[in-house]
Amino acid sequence: MKKWIYQFGINHNNEHLDNITGLLGGKGAGLAQMSSLSLPIPPGFTIITDICNYYYNNENKLPPNFKNDLSKALQDLETETGKKFGCHKNPLLLSVRSGSKISMPGMMDTVLNLGMNEEVLNALVLTSGNKKFVFDNYRRFLAMYGSIVLNVPYYLFEDAFALHKARANIYKDDDTTVDILENVIKDFKKIIEKHSGKECEPDPLEQLSESIKAVLNSWMSHRAITYRKLNNIPESSGTAINIQSMVFGNMGETSATGVVFTRCPSQGDKKIFGEFLINAQGEDVVSGSRTPSPISSDGNQQGKSMEILMPELFQELEQVCRKLEYHYKDTQDIEFTIEKGVLYILQTRTAKRTAAASVKIAVNMVEEGVISKEKAIMRIEPESLCQLLHTGIDYSKNLEHVAVGLPASPGAASGIVVFSPFDAEEMSHYHKVILVRNDTSPEDIQGMHVAAGIITARGGMTSHAAVVARGMGRPCVCGVSNIVVDEINKILKIGDLIVKHGDTITIDGGAGKIFLGKVPLIQPEVTKEFEVILKWAYEISALSVRANAETVLDATMGLKFGAQGIGLSRSEHMFFDKDKIPLVREMIIAKNAEQRKKSIDQLLTLQIQDFKALFRIMKNKPINVRLLDPPLHEFLPTEQEDIKKVADSLNLSVSSIKQRLDDLHEVNPMLGHRGCRLGISYPEIYQMQVEAIFTAINELDKEENIKTLLELMIPLISNVNELKKLKFYIQQKITILEENFSCKFNYKIGTMIEIPRAALTANEIGGEVDFFSFGTNDLTQTTYGISRDDLSSFLPNYLEQKIFEHDPFICLDEEGVGELIKIAIERGRKANSRLTLGACGEHAGNPKSIEFFHKAGIDYISCSPYRIPIALIAAAQAKIRH
Amino acid sequence: MKKWIYQFGINHNNEHLDNITGLLGGKGAGLAQMSSLSLPIPPGFTIITDICNYYYNNENKLPPNFKNDLSKALQDLETETGKKFGCHKNPLLLSVRSGSKISMPGMMDTVLNLGMNEEVLNALVLTSGNKKFVFDNYRRFLAMYGSIVLNVPYYLFEDAFALHKARANIYKDDDTTVDILENVIKDFKKIIEKHSGKECEPDPLEQLSESIKAVLNSWMSHRAITYRKLNNIPESSGTAINIQSMVFGNMGETSATGVVFTRCPSQGDKKIFGEFLINAQGEDVVSGSRTPSPISSDGNQQGKSMEILMPELFQELEQVCRKLEYHYKDTQDIEFTIEKGVLYILQTRTAKRTAAASVKIAVNMVEEGVISKEKAIMRIEPESLCQLLHTGIDYSKNLEHVAVGLPASPGAASGIVVFSPFDAEEMSHYHKVILVRNDTSPEDIQGMHVAAGIITARGGMTSHAAVVARGMGRPCVCGVSNIVVDEINKILKIGDLIVKHGDTITIDGGAGKIFLGKVPLIQPEVTKEFEVILKWAYEISALSVRANAETVLDATMGLKFGAQGIGLSRSEHMFFDKDKIPLVREMIIAKNAEQRKKSIDQLLTLQIQDFKALFRIMKNKPINVRLLDPPLHEFLPTEQEDIKKVADSLNLSVSSIKQRLDDLHEVNPMLGHRGCRLGISYPEIYQMQVEAIFTAINELDKEENIKTLLELMIPLISNVNELKKLKFYIQQKITILEENFSCKFNYKIGTMIEIPRAALTANEIGGEVDFFSFGTNDLTQTTYGISRDDLSSFLPNYLEQKIFEHDPFICLDEEGVGELIKIAIERGRKANSRLTLGACGEHAGNPKSIEFFHKAGIDYISCSPYRIPIALIAAAQAKIRH
Repeated sequence: MKKWIYQFGINHNNEHLDNITGLLGGKGAGLAQMSSLSLPIPPGFTIITDICNYYYNNENKLPPNFKNDLSKALQDLETETGKKFGCHKNPLLLSVRSGSKISMPGMMDTVLNLGMNEEVLNALVLTSGNKKFVFDNYRRFLAMYGSIVLNVPYYLFEDAFALHKARANIYKDDDTTVDILENVIKDFKKIIEKHSGKECEPDPLEQLSESIKAVLNSWMSHRAITYRKLNNIPESSGTAINIQSMVFGNMGETSATGVVFTRCPSQGDKKIFGEFLINAQGEDVVSGSRTPSPISSDGNQQGKSMEILMPELFQELEQVCRKLEYHYKDTQDIEFTIEKGVLYILQTRTAKRTAAASVKIAVNMVEEGVISKEKAIMRIEPESLCQLLHTGIDYSKNLEHVAVGLPASPGAASGIVVFSPFDAEEMSHYHKVILVRNDTSPEDIQGMHVAAGIITARGGMTSHAAVVARGMGRPCVCGVSNIVVDEINKILKIGDLIVKHGDTITIDGGAGKIFLGKVPLIQPEVTKEFEVILKWAYEISALSVRANAETVLDATMGLKFGAQGIGLSRSEHMFFDKDKIPLVREMIIAKNAEQRKKSIDQLLTLQIQDFKALFRIMKNKPINVRLLDPPLHEFLPTEQEDIKKVADSLNLSVSSIKQRLDDLHEVNPMLGHRGCRLGISYPEIYQMQVEAIFTAINELDKEENIKTLLELMIPLISNVNELKKLKFYIQQKITILEENFSCKFNYKIGTMIEIPRAALTANEIGGEVDFFSFGTNDLTQTTYGISRDDLSSFLPNYLEQKIFEHDPFICLDEEGVGELIKIAIERGRKANSRLTLGACGEHAGNPKSIEFFHKAGIDYISCSPYRIPIALIAAAQAKIRH
Repeated sequence: MKKWIYQFGINHNNEHLDNITGLLGGKGAGLAQMSSLSLPIPPGFTIITDICNYYYNNENKLPPNFKNDLSKALQDLETETGKKFGCHKNPLLLSVRSGSKISMPGMMDTVLNLGMNEEVLNALVLTSGNKKFVFDNYRRFLAMYGSIVLNVPYYLFEDAFALHKARANIYKDDDTTVDILENVIKDFKKIIEKHSGKECEPDPLEQLSESIKAVLNSWMSHRAITYRKLNNIPESSGTAINIQSMVFGNMGETSATGVVFTRCPSQGDKKIFGEFLINAQGEDVVSGSRTPSPISSDGNQQGKSMEILMPELFQELEQVCRKLEYHYKDTQDIEFTIEKGVLYILQTRTAKRTAAASVKIAVNMVEEGVISKEKAIMRIEPESLCQLLHTGIDYSKNLEHVAVGLPASPGAASGIVVFSPFDAEEMSHYHKVILVRNDTSPEDIQGMHVAAGIITARGGMTSHAAVVARGMGRPCVCGVSNIVVDEINKILKIGDLIVKHGDTITIDGGAGKIFLGKVPLIQPEVTKEFEVILKWAYEISALSVRANAETVLDATMGLKFGAQGIGLSRSEHMFFDKDKIPLVREMIIAKNAEQRKKSIDQLLTLQIQDFKALFRIMKNKPINVRLLDPPLHEFLPTEQEDIKKVADSLNLSVSSIKQRLDDLHEVNPMLGHRGCRLGISYPEIYQMQVEAIFTAINELDKEENIKTLLELMIPLISNVNELKKLKFYIQQKITILEENFSCKFNYKIGTMIEIPRAALTANEIGGEVDFFSFGTNDLTQTTYGISRDDLSSFLPNYLEQKIFEHDPFICLDEEGVGELIKIAIERGRKANSRLTLGACGEHAGNPKSIEFFHKAGIDYISCSPYRIPIALIAAAQAKIRH
């Protein structure tokens, strides 16, 4: 026969149980473990988590032997406490609480003070000698039981209580009198009868059984289902039910209730931290109906801290905290109650904490010798580090946002609204600007660069705007569906609200929120502990972590966060500089090779300086430079006004530029004339880039004795012949340069694997190159046949309907894209055992994907500078896990 | 020691040699085989094909032992002929001819009458007693040797000879006198000395060795290299050299030379066919300097046929033809010379023939018991059948085209030029029209349907225009790069030429050519033999061949050509009908589900009729219907004028339609919201299609007792969850219909495999479906990351530079796309051993790709109706070959 119930308390030791959290749920396991530690917990018992699956698999029925087990456990508890459930002399009251395997704080229901009825009420008045306390408990019981078991809306109870207090001019619950409470109880009973059609169940055993069902039913409440979805908690994991004898924090001035953390959950300082209320029950601390006092006085002797008011109990609590933290080797979040001067511990669990606290606590605990470096690293949620790296909004200030979009790039910023990259540049001399666009294209890059933040009406988490913004570390909100961006009239409509050019707004790119006006921001802070944990991660990780960077600024930022090189430098980003874009356009619009050569020669001179600056910063660290990738039309303007400007500046007719734009127009630019295909069509462009790169290397070497570890990358290969042809062009140019400079260059040459055919034919391609770099953005697009610029029209629905488990552009699809990566690695390595392997798509900054890259045997990952700490931690975690 | 030389002639039998063509080249093998058949050939010897590789691998030197072998062979030849090379009494003259392994007609050099000099000349005059004949030979020798060995431009000899004839008022070569020839010879010698800097080599042995080198050098001539490239002949295959004693067709009225085919190479009739010239050498027949006479009189007794003029020799030649055709079991192309009444056979080879002749000969030879059905099928070049299926242009009329594009869809048509689908419909009531567009989109389909032919300025062989035109059997020329299509002003500019709306032009879609005005056309003819060979192919082929069809017209055409079902019916094509498109647009523009339902209900009624008509035609044959695939914006108009029309007809504002267009705009529509993604976003559309299909099936069954073998296909699956969800929606609808109709439907459900991820996860997808149909167009696009609408900007260059061996949208890429197909088949079959496999992309009509599908184990292929005969033959060939 299955054992459905396990008892806890000083007399019960369940330490020997396997998978105790799985069996008893988080709360139940904590109670069992505290029993073993001989901590003062009110005795009780746990109904195991399996009850939940049984209940839902058997038409909401409980197992046949369950009733017997329950009365047996109840009898034992009565013996242990010397009280009797439902007894009219010395009655036992119970709490019934959920306790799932995986914590779902606040999502499920609890019933306290169970076992009350009119007779028990009278008995309790006699035994406690405290009528107000007993009536107060009855009031609480009626409201909880009424709302949770009988589904009476809770606000009806709140309103009725508030009315009585108002009539009596009472503001604090504490000040209510027995008379008032009697009337409140009468009203509560009427409310219950009116809304549930029957009186409140008087039989304590019935109350218990109904409450158990109510807790089980709350497993399928809307909010619980949503929470599980959001946190990827399987439905089958289930909840246990903990039934515990009540202790009372509301028995007068020597009673209290509170919550304590073994270390500060906000900053991570090593001192107990928490709040408590004298003469109260737990719900009063949570509900905010009274303002709690601090546990520690924190040097402030004036306060009403527990340390000052109850110094002995404070010390006892401190000891409990030490004991529990030592036992769990992690910061605990503990609920306690003091009943007439006696301390009871009701619950302990691992404390939720801010990213800052989690880093500080992890590092401190290593220094204290409590945990290993590996354990410390495993304690960090990599994504949470975002909080430490970016400006945030001070949400304690009760702010109301006006629109929500996708949290495309973290960080917060305030600024005036502008609607074009030109306005952005213009206005950025005087103000911080927020660039608002329907969507962005490479011609917006300069504008994005000068903007403090970016909003786009369209596009997903991996749209152009999102990718570029993350790379630049600019806060960005994408795909805000309920706004209209009128770029011509320079108006942003949010519902009925009109935001004009020049109006101030604030965005939170980490939350996807937009606020009107300027709102208070919190600046990030890089602590000593943060640096320490990154150093450990670097030492442990098997994967190198590099930065995607093309500017000195980005490269510097990358190095600051621990980048071990540049894994992707998109050479075309340099083309968008103010001084280069006219030349690039001339090059594209050129009618013949001779004309083209003129602009190319001018570009060359400028590019040499770009590369010198970048290489200088990165000396002695590998730098991967990718040759021109995007289609040429991305460099040409698309709007009438901009075309006119370009025509004027190039001294050409508007129609000739329009003609060229028309010629270059592509139905599916993602699958068009770009990448190595351009290199083959216009060898002179790649040769210019190669000349700029190697001239820069040579000059740095000769002038400043700086050695550059260059990796030259050819994008978008689908056929080994493309690679052979381009290698030929490139090596031809390098040979000439070596003759001119009288030197011999050391460099690696490689390719992106970003097209399924490249992965499938890696056996041919591998033999031609020194490295593969997996461009997982494009590889995901082609493997799925999904354009990341167009997926916002169906992806939200796909995720909601669970057709896709994750956005494949954020979390690498291991089954499809991952399979191609594995095929490419196997075939590539067979052709060339010395092949170096990198990954440089967005996924290189995603922890789950990083774990895949680690397992697949990738050598380095490269992500935007701002994600390097996250990637480092994730890489170290992957190493530790496998 | 390697044997470099093999002798031929009546006394030599080389029948025992392995791989005789590989060793001796085509011509040498023919001479060796004719030796074995005891046919009258002038004796000689063949220098093996390996000499060519040796020569090019050893800095244009001949092997060390070669000289000895050559003099030995020459001595033997002298013994056999009783003449002596270079002798002043009874001199031997030789011909030196190339003879590659794979025929390269006319591409390489020949030197005749070798061994001449002043002394030999005199000796020959004595032995032959025919001064004019000898001088004529010397003239020919000087011109050939001078031009081929000494690189003197040939026209100089021609001009000099013409001048002498003109001075003497002579128009026919035959009428020249000895005196004139003497002067010509003097002039020729001067020309040689002037241009080569030395006199013509007098030593016959030197002449021989120089001529051998000249023939070898011609292997690397520009035209030979080009020919090999065009015909995929490897450079290493090499040429042999045939050295043969000269016989002379120019020794007077009893001498002659000619070419004969054992059957008619144009129509395939079983009678010898050819031309000859009395008193001439072979080059005279080819050069066109004299008009040859027919060999057979063909019932016409008035002509100067060989049959009439030389009846006995004609009979002997007929016997030789019979003997050779019997030996080779194929029609032969034979060169012969008659020297003083004696017939010599100089060469035999397999005859080139028209598609019509190839079909007739193949079928006749089976009927005659000469070859098997399998051999007959292998004799047909599948692609050549295009000639038999489409109208062609009569190029004998010396036509000049004005522009060339890609041969996108075969067939020729004349008509007046129109520039919009509306004009096409309007004008097609009175004229044949040629629709000229920059490119086409689905909204052009109705216009394409009424057009006699289509031209687009942009797009490749698999652009929308090309694919649709091939499906409809409309001639189409795509990607004509040097034209400008001004759709607004209705003008087509071809260079300086202006073609206006209403002007007549003609296009040849098989050659990609455009002509001004109306030009003479040749109509196709389906012969009895054509039907016979298709029947055989059907019997032999392991692959079923089906048609891609959605209209009754296409389906009928498919059945006529032997389709065994419909392999792809693109249901959305039905949406473009005049009566449906406004409803489809209403459906798309609908603001809510209720509005949408109204138009969907109306569409339903119309679609039921469409499906009934199609299913009625195809009764008892499988029909694969694909649910809606293209993105919704393809159904909306894009041009101002058209938007206005739609707005008016739908009683909506222009701006509301523009807004919807804007909402639906996609950056990469190929990778956007289409296929099953639409089915998931708008389940009501797929459910309407399903209702129409099954209602049609039910009505046909109940009203006409027609059974429909339906295969329902879901497009663009990338994740098995899409399939599960849609199957749920579809089966839900079918269950309701079964209840309403009180019936039980039999059908198969399957998916297209057209996304790499679908192929990679076929293990999951296979378990959910009855069939896979490989959509190789889209699979090629995603596997390569190349949009077929955009590849024209770089593909020509890629093909020219041999980066791609073939256009991967025409000939399936076995290495990449094929690899994914193999993976999908293996994984899919593992999950579901009863999985049926089809292929329905453009490749299903391409012979090489069909061979791949056969080997991969595909069950059926489906192509446009007009390619079914080609596919049938190719499928049978694949079966025979493997």
